[in-house]
Amino acid sequence: MYYTLAEIAERFGGRVLGDAQVRIGQIATLELAQPAQISFLTNSKYRAELTRTRAGAVIVAEADAQATDLPRIVTQNPYAYFARVSAMLNPAPEIKPGVHPTAVVGEGALIDPTASVLATAVVGSGAVIGAHSVIGEGCFIGDNVMIGRHVRLYPRVVIYHDCMIGDHLIAHSGAVIGADGFGFAMDEGRWIKIPQIGRVVIGNDVEIGANTTIDRGALDDTVIEDGVKLDNQIQIAHNVRIGAHTVIAGCVGIAGSTTIGKYCQIGGSAGILGHLKIADGVVIASFTLIGKSIREAGSYAAIFPFGKTEEWRKNAVHLRHLDEMAKRIKTLEQALLKTVER
Amino acid sequence: MYYTLAEIAERFGGRVLGDAQVRIGQIATLELAQPAQISFLTNSKYRAELTRTRAGAVIVAEADAQATDLPRIVTQNPYAYFARVSAMLNPAPEIKPGVHPTAVVGEGALIDPTASVLATAVVGSGAVIGAHSVIGEGCFIGDNVMIGRHVRLYPRVVIYHDCMIGDHLIAHSGAVIGADGFGFAMDEGRWIKIPQIGRVVIGNDVEIGANTTIDRGALDDTVIEDGVKLDNQIQIAHNVRIGAHTVIAGCVGIAGSTTIGKYCQIGGSAGILGHLKIADGVVIASFTLIGKSIREAGSYAAIFPFGKTEEWRKNAVHLRHLDEMAKRIKTLEQALLKTVER
Amino acid sequence: MYYTLAEIAERFGGRVLGDAQVRIGQIATLELAQPAQISFLTNSKYRAELTRTRAGAVIVAEADAQATDLPRIVTQNPYAYFARVSAMLNPAPEIKPGVHPTAVVGEGALIDPTASVLATAVVGSGAVIGAHSVIGEGCFIGDNVMIGRHVRLYPRVVIYHDCMIGDHLIAHSGAVIGADGFGFAMDEGRWIKIPQIGRVVIGNDVEIGANTTIDRGALDDTVIEDGVKLDNQIQIAHNVRIGAHTVIAGCVGIAGSTTIGKYCQIGGSAGILGHLKIADGVVIASFTLIGKSIREAGSYAAIFPFGKTEEWRKNAVHLRHLDEMAKRIKTLEQALLKTVER
Repeated sequence: MYYTLAEIAERFGGRVLGDAQVRIGQIATLELAQPAQISFLTNSKYRAELTRTRAGAVIVAEADAQATDLPRIVTQNPYAYFARVSAMLNPAPEIKPGVHPTAVVGEGALIDPTASVLATAVVGSGAVIGAHSVIGEGCFIGDNVMIGRHVRLYPRVVIYHDCMIGDHLIAHSGAVIGADGFGFAMDEGRWIKIPQIGRVVIGNDVEIGANTTIDRGALDDTVIEDGVKLDNQIQIAHNVRIGAHTVIAGCVGIAGSTTIGKYCQIGGSAGILGHLKIADGVVIASFTLIGKSIREAGSYAAIFPFGKTEEWRKNAVHLRHLDEMAKRIKTLEQALLKTVER
Repeated sequence: MYYTLAEIAERFGGRVLGDAQVRIGQIATLELAQPAQISFLTNSKYRAELTRTRAGAVIVAEADAQATDLPRIVTQNPYAYFARVSAMLNPAPEIKPGVHPTAVVGEGALIDPTASVLATAVVGSGAVIGAHSVIGEGCFIGDNVMIGRHVRLYPRVVIYHDCMIGDHLIAHSGAVIGADGFGFAMDEGRWIKIPQIGRVVIGNDVEIGANTTIDRGALDDTVIEDGVKLDNQIQIAHNVRIGAHTVIAGCVGIAGSTTIGKYCQIGGSAGILGHLKIADGVVIASFTLIGKSIREAGSYAAIFPFGKTEEWRKNAVHLRHLDEMAKRIKTLEQALLKTVER
Repeated sequence: MYYTLAEIAERFGGRVLGDAQVRIGQIATLELAQPAQISFLTNSKYRAELTRTRAGAVIVAEADAQATDLPRIVTQNPYAYFARVSAMLNPAPEIKPGVHPTAVVGEGALIDPTASVLATAVVGSGAVIGAHSVIGEGCFIGDNVMIGRHVRLYPRVVIYHDCMIGDHLIAHSGAVIGADGFGFAMDEGRWIKIPQIGRVVIGNDVEIGANTTIDRGALDDTVIEDGVKLDNQIQIAHNVRIGAHTVIAGCVGIAGSTTIGKYCQIGGSAGILGHLKIADGVVIASFTLIGKSIREAGSYAAIFPFGKTEEWRKNAVHLRHLDEMAKRIKTLEQALLKTVER
């Protein structure tokens, strides 16, 4: 499908400058865009690329409105505008409603007639699949799981029994929702399993990345609030609560019973210990372990700076003697004071 | 099912104080328990919650026996007692024995008549599935795999050919047991694959979390001993041996040929380099890399403490100059000594 | 199958010393080898093991040619030689070509008659599977995916639509190739999804470990060049490019749009931030976060050295005061200078 700049602006707003009849069929980076494609500039410092691009049109901010002669749409938030245009130009492929003959559906499952259960998927007894939702190939939906509307599960997602999923969830392949939390009691030299009888409850508009795992609660539920976005290979332990619109990058681990606020941003491979509370609006750097609750919004980090291995080694050896170093400094200060006083 | 306190104590021991005829149908936290539910106190410092709970009964330690008037069971280890009561109140759902018509079973596989092979599972030639074991939906069991009794594989577990699994294993969705270890030889600018011909051998009473991976040995086997508990997204490389009753939290990586002792506890996202030996009873903190063998039991850590990003940055910059800092302190000490000696 | 040393040397080169008619059926470590097995010595410091081994023959380097009387093959690169001999002694099991009756193949998919699509696998419309490739049990191949020749996908690998895979790929169970990259634009308090319309393009001779994830590009492609070897549970974000023959150990995370050179080696659980460039031949230690581009080959590290927890704590507390410590040293130096000048 092709759209003119005028049609795009009519749909998403913004001000057209230059030829509004340019026809656009795809979106692309400034570097690789072709004449039938639209590109975008989100940061004025890359303005120079505007002069080199072969794009047929661009999306720019007010501040960059005059930085090019190309046909352009001027808008407050070019990045969000780009996201919307791209979604229009790249609609999800249509999937036929209905249950594929190789799918297996348990007794009493309620599958909306507009929903799709694709090849080799398994849906448990008493599960409910809402309107326009798509259960991908080879997915497993446990007994009594409730899935809302417009949910898209990519192939081989697993949702254990009794979990509740809101509307518009996107979950990528290999995600596992509702496996047992990690709970054992030591008794006479053996670990006894603690049954995990809580659920996972997921709000609306959540996205879950490939191979991410979210454990069910031990007694109460694990909760993912509306608008949370989780990247790949994240581990969320039992009874964690993640506040609305928080985004978490890949490979993060969050230990049990921790509560994370709304609009937080957690960098890749970070970790948060258990039973903590993280305030709204907290930004955590990649590779940072959070070992105490954070009570105020702001940016937090704990990264060991890298260097050439031989230099790292020369410096790192002193970390085992920092306390001694601090004492020697103190001793020096006192000695010097005495010297001066003499 | 409901049980009186008297019936529970008859089954699991402990001393009942107060009304032994209170009927209990579920277990819950002190905060959320209802009158037909039993709760538990594992730490005296939360005694105050006993006064607020609506639970019908509680499980407490000897030291807290008089801290409440609620009907109660007094026991030495309330946490283990809670685990046992919860298991009684929440039995695993019964699963019909037999092979689902959509499952695929290879030639010569031996499936005990009390075992279940659920929908879309695939069992290879010559595999053996023991009594009362359940092979979940979409699982893959390779050729000649031996699986013991009372094993529960949740949906989409993969076990590669020739691996040996003991009794009472619980493995969660997405776990991959027996994939090739990571072994290559460099030859004239190309990596040549080293065939991984060992197996994974797993003892009894092991639990393996969702999306955890345990690689098969290169030549000899990778071994997980009895009672080991592995959380989600753990990576265990080829030829690792994990000692009995060791517990490992989520996202830990253990490199090849490392041997870990019995009754160790390894925190989330920790790592252990290859070819090391870790003694029995070692506790490793979250986010800690172990780069040398540990010969004695005890607690080990290496965590960079987090702070506000600007403070972290101000301090971290000096890590690249610690060696210089140490030298300057030494110079100061010598200079001061001379000054004093003058 | 058994082979004499003479037959092995005829096939792979090298010089036979001792009885060339010894028959070999398997390969094993020096410690566990039996008389019908061949072993190998890759490091002269383990020479003592040669005297204890029960192996029928060994593969040694020129420098160790006289370190044993055992029948032996002398070669420049014993480790690569071992890999070749092992591959000969342990050929992959033969898999019958054709599409299993429980597999589901979409319209217009082209499956080479020598290829295999195993039980419960799903192949999308327009996909192409090359000669001698094996699509394992329960794999999902999206629409229009192109897969080359001699590819081996183990059970439950997922490849999303439109991705391109070269020849001789080995991908282990749970690997997910082509899931959406993690891209959102914030707009009035909500995250809007940015459609991920690039692909994953994988060269020849690549290996991908269990549960590793490689995201599709946002606009352009994510690219894995020839000969790259990826261990388990690696996360590769959208638009990353990994140079030929680079090897990456388990649990590594690489953020979006980073380019890694050829012949790099990245240690386990390391991380690389987004939009960086890593030169050819860079070696990164385990557990190291790379936060800036690296322009020259060499070895880089950033590991916090571990210790007993109480010692770690005593030292780590000073990390929050390093800047102050540095200032106190400076003050001392100036004060001492004045003292001396007096």
